Amino acid sequence: MDCLFCKIAQETVPASIIYKDDEFVVFKDINPKAPIHILIIPRKHIVSINHLEAEDESLIGKMFLTAKKIAKKLEIDEKGYKLVFNVGRGGGQIIDHLHLHLLAGWKNSTERNVPGMP
Amino acid sequence: MDCLFCKIAQETVPASIIYKDDEFVVFKDINPKAPIHILIIPRKHIVSINHLEAEDESLIGKMFLTAKKIAKKLEIDEKGYKLVFNVGRGGGQIIDHLHLHLLAGWKNSTERNVPGMP
Repeated sequence: MDCLFCKIAQETVPASIIYKDDEFVVFKDINPKAPIHILIIPRKHIVSINHLEAEDESLIGKMFLTAKKIAKKLEIDEKGYKLVFNVGRGGGQIIDHLHLHLLAGWKNSTERNVPGMP
Repeated sequence: MDCLFCKIAQETVPASIIYKDDEFVVFKDINPKAPIHILIIPRKHIVSINHLEAEDESLIGKMFLTAKKIAKKLEIDEKGYKLVFNVGRGGGQIIDHLHLHLLAGWKNSTERNVPGMP
């Protein structure tokens, strides 16, 4: 399958990987939208949240336990962060392999707050 | 416990509820940041992603299966949407009860795209 994120997970395409285990690979976004911008992807090829099946329930739960762990590892857990899934082109999703954006590192709320986002 | 979202889940405080089941309540955000802005909360009081325990794995997985279902119900699944957790005050979290933002309904990518967000 010609999927960029599958290739990153298989390490046939390079990325700044900061964590990996049997189910997930975590790496820096090459086009960061915040001072800290990390992507968490499952090794399993799932296109998007629209494509989740009931059998993926545990995987998604683990994805957020991984996000919590990465936030602690990066020492951004107490300062705060955002976790974002874009779903579909109209939701801003560019790569058709499920990826969770972890955004953090803003100096203050003025830098963090953007119109149109909660 | 004096928690606004617990009260909404218990229906002792009113909200524009669009869906509910044994584990989740889904309602309109009173301060929408997008044409469609919905909140999905678990009935269980979990403060934030930072406070997840291993036992919450299944609940979080179900939360995203619920988000997928709601997107279909609202007929925004094909047009696309965003799912956002803010974590901690520094991440923009205002209410200390886990809530997943579902954002959608933008006219086009110009309206959707905001600087500082993926």
